[in-house]
Amino acid sequence: MLKVNADRLLADLAELSQIGATSDGGVSRPALTAADIEARDWYRGKIAEAGLDYAMDGAGNQSAILGSDPPSAKRILAGSHLDSVPNGGRFDGALGVMVAFEALRTLKDHGITPGVSLEAVNFTDEEGAIMGLMGSRAVAGQLSAEDFDRAKIDKAELARRLAAVDISRDSMLHARRDDVLAWAELHIEQGTRLESGEIAIGVVNAIVGIRALRVTFKGEAAHAGTKPMELRRDALWGAAEFVLRARKHIMDNFMPGVCNIGKIDAKPGAFNIVPAEAHLALEFRHGSTAELDRMETALLELLEKCAAEYDLSVSWEGTPTVRPARMSETVMRAIESAAQGLGLPHQRMLSFAGHDTQSMASIAPAAMYFVPSKLGISHNPKEFTADEDCVNGANMMLRTLLELLRRFA
Amino acid sequence: MLKVNADRLLADLAELSQIGATSDGGVSRPALTAADIEARDWYRGKIAEAGLDYAMDGAGNQSAILGSDPPSAKRILAGSHLDSVPNGGRFDGALGVMVAFEALRTLKDHGITPGVSLEAVNFTDEEGAIMGLMGSRAVAGQLSAEDFDRAKIDKAELARRLAAVDISRDSMLHARRDDVLAWAELHIEQGTRLESGEIAIGVVNAIVGIRALRVTFKGEAAHAGTKPMELRRDALWGAAEFVLRARKHIMDNFMPGVCNIGKIDAKPGAFNIVPAEAHLALEFRHGSTAELDRMETALLELLEKCAAEYDLSVSWEGTPTVRPARMSETVMRAIESAAQGLGLPHQRMLSFAGHDTQSMASIAPAAMYFVPSKLGISHNPKEFTADEDCVNGANMMLRTLLELLRRFA
Repeated sequence: MLKVNADRLLADLAELSQIGATSDGGVSRPALTAADIEARDWYRGKIAEAGLDYAMDGAGNQSAILGSDPPSAKRILAGSHLDSVPNGGRFDGALGVMVAFEALRTLKDHGITPGVSLEAVNFTDEEGAIMGLMGSRAVAGQLSAEDFDRAKIDKAELARRLAAVDISRDSMLHARRDDVLAWAELHIEQGTRLESGEIAIGVVNAIVGIRALRVTFKGEAAHAGTKPMELRRDALWGAAEFVLRARKHIMDNFMPGVCNIGKIDAKPGAFNIVPAEAHLALEFRHGSTAELDRMETALLELLEKCAAEYDLSVSWEGTPTVRPARMSETVMRAIESAAQGLGLPHQRMLSFAGHDTQSMASIAPAAMYFVPSKLGISHNPKEFTADEDCVNGANMMLRTLLELLRRFA
Repeated sequence: MLKVNADRLLADLAELSQIGATSDGGVSRPALTAADIEARDWYRGKIAEAGLDYAMDGAGNQSAILGSDPPSAKRILAGSHLDSVPNGGRFDGALGVMVAFEALRTLKDHGITPGVSLEAVNFTDEEGAIMGLMGSRAVAGQLSAEDFDRAKIDKAELARRLAAVDISRDSMLHARRDDVLAWAELHIEQGTRLESGEIAIGVVNAIVGIRALRVTFKGEAAHAGTKPMELRRDALWGAAEFVLRARKHIMDNFMPGVCNIGKIDAKPGAFNIVPAEAHLALEFRHGSTAELDRMETALLELLEKCAAEYDLSVSWEGTPTVRPARMSETVMRAIESAAQGLGLPHQRMLSFAGHDTQSMASIAPAAMYFVPSKLGISHNPKEFTADEDCVNGANMMLRTLLELLRRFA
C-alpha cells in the first residue's frame, strides 16, 4: 500500500516550527510579517528541492504542483495555510499544507503522473492578521474593495506587506480561479470531540455559519443610593437575564449550535450610578442556515422578553455574517474511503471554526477533515497533535487525492 | 408665630441660581471654580447686608453668625453647601444654606439674641470636585494628607484653587472645631418617598454606610465556536448569575438596603472568545453597620455560590468604605417638634446619599431633614423643589434652631 514518508514529513514539520518560533514552543507568524515570509521562502525552497513545480498567484497563494501528462486545464487542490495567530501553535494550518505537499512528493517519488495536475496550496492570511481567509477568498472571487478598507492594518502597512511578496490590492482583486475541480483540506480539530471519542478522523460535513449582533439595553440612570431598587430600570438586569437565558435556550434547543457573549459593558459605568445602558456582543453559530434563522428568531424574542421584564428597551444591529458552508458529498466520500482504506475510525461532524475550505466550497466541490488536537487547545503555544495523527493525516491526504483523481479526473 | 420672610428667601434663591447658571435651568458650580467663588462672594455680601457677622475657617467654610449675648464659647450650627456637581440643579445644597441663613436673618429682624451663637454654614466641596465632604470633614478632623494625595485634581490645580480663597492644604488639616454644640441640615430628598407618600418632611435617622467591592470572576478563555457550550467555563455566566441573584437577595432580605452593580466588563473581550474574566463593581448601602455586615456576608457567599455553579473562581477587593452615621435622637426630636408646631406631616427615613451631616455627626449631636424633590430627580438641571416646600424648609429650620437653643443652650 502506498504510504507517505513519515520521517520526512515529521522532520519538515520540526524544521518549519523553528520559523517564528516562540520561547514556549509555539510559533508567531502573522501573515506577511518577516516570520511568515521566511516560512513562505522555506516552502518555496522545499518545493524546488522536491522537484515539484512552483507557482504563486495574485493573492500570494503558493502552490507546489505535480503536473498531469498530458497537461490538464483543470486541477485538484489541497492545502491550508502557513501563517499563524500571534503566539499560536505549530499545527494550525501548517500541518494541512505539509500533508498535501508530502502527498505530492510521495506520488512523485513513486513516479505517479496524475490524470490532472495536483496542487498543494499555502493560502495567504487565513488567520486574519490582515482580514482573514484572504488568499482563499481571493481565489473564490469573494474579495471586494470594501474588504481592503476594513483591513485590520492601515493602508500604508498593508501596501508594504503586499509589496514584500510582489502582490498588490489590484492583483488580489483579480486572483479568482475557475480551474478548480475539487478541494480537500486537513486541519487540526481545535476541539475535543475526536480525542474524547477516540476517533482518528473527523469528516467535516459543514462549516458553521456565524451571525453576530451588537445589542443595547436601555433603562434609566439613577443614584445607586436614593433610588429604591423596586423603582430602578437597571439596564444590566435585562442584560444579565439575557446572558443566562440565551445560554440555557441554545443548550436546550439548538445543540450542537453555540452562542457566546464575549463583550459587555454598562454605561455610564460608575460604582454609584445605576446603569442606564448595557451593551453586549452576541455571536451564534450553526451548520445550517435554517437553524441559524431559528436561532436568530429565538434570540431576538428573548431580547425583547428580557427587556420587558425589567421595563427596558432593547435594540440591536447586525454585523457581517458568515454563511454556513455545506461540504461536497463526493469529496466527503473520498475522505471516508481513504479512512476506511487505512482502517481509521472516522465520524462526520461540524466545524465550528472558519477555514479556507469555506471559501473553496463556493467555487468547487470541497470538503475537509480533522485530526485530533490534544485537549482541544489551539491558537496557543500548547497546541499539540501527536506524530501518529500527523502521519495518519498525511496518508489520508495521499489516499483522498487518489480518490479525487478517480472521481474527478 | 415667628415665620421667615418667604419672599426674601425665594428672591435670594432665584438670585443665587443665576450664578453658574446653565442654559437648561440648572447650575454648574464645582467647588472653588469661578462660579463657586462667585457664589461664595455673593453669600458673603448677603451676610454683610443682613448685618450678621461673617467668618471663614481654614477649610474655606463660610459662616453667617448671629452672636449670643453674653458671647458663648460653644455654638449651634446649621447649613449645607453652595457648590454643585457639574450641570447640577438649583436646590441641592443651596437650599440648605439659604434656609439656615434666612432663619438667622429672621431672628435678627425680630431682635432675638440667642443664648449661644448660631451659625449658617456653607461647607466647601461637598459634591466632590476635589474630594467630597471636604469642608465638613476638615471641621470634623477627618482629613488626612492621604486624602489630598487622592484628590481628583492634580496638585498644582488643587493648590491654585485653595489659594484662590486664601486657604491651603495645611490650613485645611488644622480646621477641626471643638466648639459645636449641635448641628442641623436641610437637604432636598433626591428620592421619591416624600412625594409619593405626600409627606412634607423626612426626618433622617441615619445616613447609610457604603461598602464597595471590585469583583473578578475567572474561568477559561475558549474559542466561541469549537468549545462546546457544556464544557465552557464562561466567567460572564457567573457574573450574570450574581447580578440577578444579588438583586433578588437584597430586595427580599435587606430592604431598605440597596445594592448596585454599576460597572461590568468581560476579558479578553471579543465576539468570538469565551470570556476568561468578568469584572464587576459592586456597591451596597444600609443605615446600620450590623446590617451592612450581614449584607456583606450574604453577598460574598453568593459570589462563591455563583462561581462554583459555573466552575469559576472568584476574588474581590474592598474599596474605602463610608460608615453609617446615626443621627442624634435629641436633634431629631427638635426637628420633629418643629414639624409638629408647623402642622407638617413628617416621617423618619434613611438618607441613601452622603451629606455634610455625616461628618458633623462625629463631633456633635447632629441630624438632618428632607423636603420633597420632584420625581426624585437630582444632580440634574431638572431638579425641582416647590416654593412652598422651600418656605416650609426655612420655617422648619427657624423652629429647629429655637428648639436646639432650648435643649442645648
